[in-house]
Amino acid sequence: MTTQHINDTMTDPTNRTRLREAATSAFAENGFHATTTRDIAAAAGMSPAALYIHHRSKQDLLHVISRDGHQEVLQLVRDASASSGGPEDRLAEVIRALAAYHAENHTIARTVNYEIHSLSPAQQAEIGGLRTAVLREVQAVVEDGVEAGVFDAPDPELTTLVLLSLCVDISRWYEQDRPWSPGELSDYASVVALNAVRPRSGQRIDAATRQPSTRSASERMATR
Amino acid sequence: MTTQHINDTMTDPTNRTRLREAATSAFAENGFHATTTRDIAAAAGMSPAALYIHHRSKQDLLHVISRDGHQEVLQLVRDASASSGGPEDRLAEVIRALAAYHAENHTIARTVNYEIHSLSPAQQAEIGGLRTAVLREVQAVVEDGVEAGVFDAPDPELTTLVLLSLCVDISRWYEQDRPWSPGELSDYASVVALNAVRPRSGQRIDAATRQPSTRSASERMATR
Repeated sequence: MTTQHINDTMTDPTNRTRLREAATSAFAENGFHATTTRDIAAAAGMSPAALYIHHRSKQDLLHVISRDGHQEVLQLVRDASASSGGPEDRLAEVIRALAAYHAENHTIARTVNYEIHSLSPAQQAEIGGLRTAVLREVQAVVEDGVEAGVFDAPDPELTTLVLLSLCVDISRWYEQDRPWSPGELSDYASVVALNAVRPRSGQRIDAATRQPSTRSASERMATR
Repeated sequence: MTTQHINDTMTDPTNRTRLREAATSAFAENGFHATTTRDIAAAAGMSPAALYIHHRSKQDLLHVISRDGHQEVLQLVRDASASSGGPEDRLAEVIRALAAYHAENHTIARTVNYEIHSLSPAQQAEIGGLRTAVLREVQAVVEDGVEAGVFDAPDPELTTLVLLSLCVDISRWYEQDRPWSPGELSDYASVVALNAVRPRSGQRIDAATRQPSTRSASERMATR
């Protein structure tokens, strides 16, 4: 076996995939900080030295997992947003795609969303850019709906953040033994999201007007 | 200074508070695993030995912070749920209280919600019980609204989980430099939540019926 042969084997894409899968499972199970590169290498059936051929560090693995996860979500959202139909159909598709992703991939989504502080500042900035791109993509659908007169969203960015919350947080509480399939859950999330933005006749919220201290804010949001 | 005097000083409630505040800040900034008991003691202006008079371990500190945080949230929800008015007013109060808590206490809320896997199994079970109590308290308001005919929530538990998601996830993205005050944000969350559960005339969601694979689930949710 030549040195070239060894190098080819070591940099085999299959090894990269195995390492990523091992790291994803370990991070989800024990958290990023409690996981060692030795744990990851062992779970992938490799030596720690072999791991370092592919990744400089545990942080580098987290970065690759986080970047690819966010890029996948951005692509899902772009595809859903580009679907045919008006803003209501498109928003339903976007929310359904996001909610299903966070239910189906709840372990990786937790790592990707809650371990951002473990990345380097440059890595955090890159992931932040991808998150902003997701936000803007969804916000554009909300704004299209406002422009078309089918959505009531006085502050489209805030509306979008709240709708994203509804989807992202699914990864925190969703477990395989929950009585709802990802399909049911994502359908329901899209119903809730559409109900939240569709204009209503009559007063939007009675309760808010009972509190003088918050009245102006809620009125502004509800009426501008 | 007698031994008794030293012990009184060491177990001073002020020291416990300082330790908890130091631990809360450190966990929020660096994550639970990257924080050492030495970091916490130093931030509290105490020796590591003094820390161990109050807490057996870093995990014990996380447990106390998490338990008290969850008990505070449960009390907030109970108070809001017990407010006067019908289910709409009560749900608005509950969502407003939850959303405001997660905006105002976003750093501690992140630690409390995302570091649960760092607790012992017994501690996780205790926190799990408090979380279930919060869920059931909110779910009871949703069920009251369904019974009174003012809410459309075919699956009150799922509805409640989704509404809680909307509030809890605020702690993930809310920062002090966001353009919305906790009051504005919590008002808006209550508007979204009420819109999500109020019955609508006509077809609830057109988009869902376009997908045969998910039609039965969405129809069941929308119509039962």
